[in-house]
Amino acid sequence: MGSMVGLKNRLEPEIKNVAQTEGVTEEFVARGVEAGRIVIPRNPIHSPKACGIGEGLSVKVNVNVGTSRDRVEVEEEMEKVQISLKYGADALMDLSTGGDIDSIRKRILSECTIPVGTVPIYQTGIRLARKGAVVDMTEDDIFNGIIQHAKDGVDFMTVHCGITKELVDRLKRSPRVTGVVSRGGSFLVAWILHNEMENPLYKNFDYLLELAKEYEFTLSLGDGIRPGSTNDATDGPQINELINLGELVHRCRDAGVQAMVEGPGHVPMNQIEANVRLEKRICDHAPFYVLGPLVTDIAPGYDHIVGAIGGAYAAWKGADFLCYVTPAEHLSLPTPEDVKEGLIASKIAAHAADLALGRGGDRDLRMSQARKDLNWGAMYEEAIDEEKARAYRSRGITNEDEGCSMCGDVCAIKIVNEYLKNRS
Amino acid sequence: MGSMVGLKNRLEPEIKNVAQTEGVTEEFVARGVEAGRIVIPRNPIHSPKACGIGEGLSVKVNVNVGTSRDRVEVEEEMEKVQISLKYGADALMDLSTGGDIDSIRKRILSECTIPVGTVPIYQTGIRLARKGAVVDMTEDDIFNGIIQHAKDGVDFMTVHCGITKELVDRLKRSPRVTGVVSRGGSFLVAWILHNEMENPLYKNFDYLLELAKEYEFTLSLGDGIRPGSTNDATDGPQINELINLGELVHRCRDAGVQAMVEGPGHVPMNQIEANVRLEKRICDHAPFYVLGPLVTDIAPGYDHIVGAIGGAYAAWKGADFLCYVTPAEHLSLPTPEDVKEGLIASKIAAHAADLALGRGGDRDLRMSQARKDLNWGAMYEEAIDEEKARAYRSRGITNEDEGCSMCGDVCAIKIVNEYLKNRS
Repeated sequence: MGSMVGLKNRLEPEIKNVAQTEGVTEEFVARGVEAGRIVIPRNPIHSPKACGIGEGLSVKVNVNVGTSRDRVEVEEEMEKVQISLKYGADALMDLSTGGDIDSIRKRILSECTIPVGTVPIYQTGIRLARKGAVVDMTEDDIFNGIIQHAKDGVDFMTVHCGITKELVDRLKRSPRVTGVVSRGGSFLVAWILHNEMENPLYKNFDYLLELAKEYEFTLSLGDGIRPGSTNDATDGPQINELINLGELVHRCRDAGVQAMVEGPGHVPMNQIEANVRLEKRICDHAPFYVLGPLVTDIAPGYDHIVGAIGGAYAAWKGADFLCYVTPAEHLSLPTPEDVKEGLIASKIAAHAADLALGRGGDRDLRMSQARKDLNWGAMYEEAIDEEKARAYRSRGITNEDEGCSMCGDVCAIKIVNEYLKNRS
Repeated sequence: MGSMVGLKNRLEPEIKNVAQTEGVTEEFVARGVEAGRIVIPRNPIHSPKACGIGEGLSVKVNVNVGTSRDRVEVEEEMEKVQISLKYGADALMDLSTGGDIDSIRKRILSECTIPVGTVPIYQTGIRLARKGAVVDMTEDDIFNGIIQHAKDGVDFMTVHCGITKELVDRLKRSPRVTGVVSRGGSFLVAWILHNEMENPLYKNFDYLLELAKEYEFTLSLGDGIRPGSTNDATDGPQINELINLGELVHRCRDAGVQAMVEGPGHVPMNQIEANVRLEKRICDHAPFYVLGPLVTDIAPGYDHIVGAIGGAYAAWKGADFLCYVTPAEHLSLPTPEDVKEGLIASKIAAHAADLALGRGGDRDLRMSQARKDLNWGAMYEEAIDEEKARAYRSRGITNEDEGCSMCGDVCAIKIVNEYLKNRS
């Protein structure tokens, strides 16, 4: 616990900023950081806007950007970064796997004022794949990738430390439909199967902690065995990995290293609360960072909506950090427009959860009062996407000071406002 | 109860069809109809495809179409009807308030193979508004409107019978932010305030029951006092109206008339389950037909997503019938594209709820198996919107038999499939 006190002291300015933004006391944030229930990802080389993630704070949203092998349009990725900032992303991950990955990451870090995360093993695996095979990665390759990202200023890194040799054996015995769907997870599962050796990130976890402490990056303990279908949700291999991660969370705290835990994935609604409660119990209230969750498998093209349903519910039940999902999920690399749609869907989910937890309702109240007053200017101001609201509205042809264009002259609000005003 | 037996007998063919579609026994459906826990809206003049709504059946979705004063494009409305049929709407309401409302309704009834609902008081109110004032409607005007719709073959009608003089007094005393936002509700509240008389639909409810019995339409007991903002959700006036509707449900059953109950509206997530449980208790398990619910007020332009979050959760907790919400909600009349987006969001919500309740998972399983096999043809076949999935996919440039275009060569599924196949 002494190490966490040191961490708390190092993060003093960030703790102050988070307290201000969230409207809670500094002591509350400091206690959360010390207990490992709140993380504030920040690498001093990047030094992003302070973003607190965890218990008692508002729900945060992460956007993924990055090139693929097939599509390396750096300017388009930078446009996605700008869209993410404009529409209020709290953090951004660069998942580039194509082109000059180093220079793209540096560019993103230089333009991105919010915390930036990466999955270093992508770059390492792809570099080796270009030379021959992912499974030829050495332990040094893996750790050198992490060091490189740390030196560039990456604030948080996904590391799939919970995948063990034993877990891969269990996976072989399991009746899963979709096997392993995490990219980083699949690299390590393949590596373990091919080399018949233990996962280097698990075996050398103490070394990883030394690096995290030295460079001050936050660990995002990845769920490489997360379910890839609602059918596989909450199964033995998934929960076994979570148990492994729970042990590692305690080692992070002993070392004074900030850590959050990643979660699924594809999960039907009736299993989401159990997933959150398990994480909170087994990982001793480490911040829970979920991908979606996706509450059905059948809606490719609309997975941002599927993820918003799952994310809103998960966050209400205690998930702290939502990784957005775009309409392009399962189909193609998202365009800038997809990034915007995915981010807004996720922001809606986060806000709906905050509202259910008694936070953030002032904005809804202001919007509702503006609606009652038929004050379109004030409505646009409170809208999550002012431009879209204006565009939809401008299609109608009713005067701005009338009701919405649905009803025209027979606006419900107008009729009763008039009567209640005169009569009460 | 004798009357409900008669109803059950009249609906014998429909009960058979519903049982087949839902994969339950005819006895189960018959008992539900007799108990008033399942409705099968059908006017013999229209005779739509049998659609069962209620306990133990899959969640159903309704689409609203119709002209407004400002926009009377009949062909566009008919395009919306075709889109609704194509993407699997279970019922459709014609809410036209502009142009030749009678002929539009007749056209919709003639082309629409699923149950069609209306809110007759819209037309009545607007006809009177054109002549002078909504509040000049007579009791005869109101009931003649209902009779006209019944004779045209309308399968279910929203009737705001629960708004009473006493309730309007209560409303005047309430600190609501958004007052009355239901159009039909506002007509009747205004009428009561102006005429200082009891709501004709409440006062003459027995006459309404006679009409419903004679013409065999289903009553959808409207929630004219539903909250128009999360701030107003689950307040005294809303629940008071629900209590009134609960009493009317019993009178429907005594008369052998099918009835469902409409519900909100704007409701934060943490109040949705209470709303469902209250309706089920107070209205003795009458099918619950909710609008959204919308779990935040701040996302105009994205209310289909807001409604999908609320609808999925409400349906999981027992709501039976979801009225869709389009991205144009609160802003303008929806376009055909908005209708499609709203319907699909609502279908996703309904399916997510079904899945959480243990229904409909076969399709998710088939999709997931297709994903594991990288079988794109099978994926498209199971997709809720095959065209959109194909369009997103075709933006990628990877070969069809490879992984999704996100990862290109380094597809997680491919790598591990290969290893697990060779090794296990």
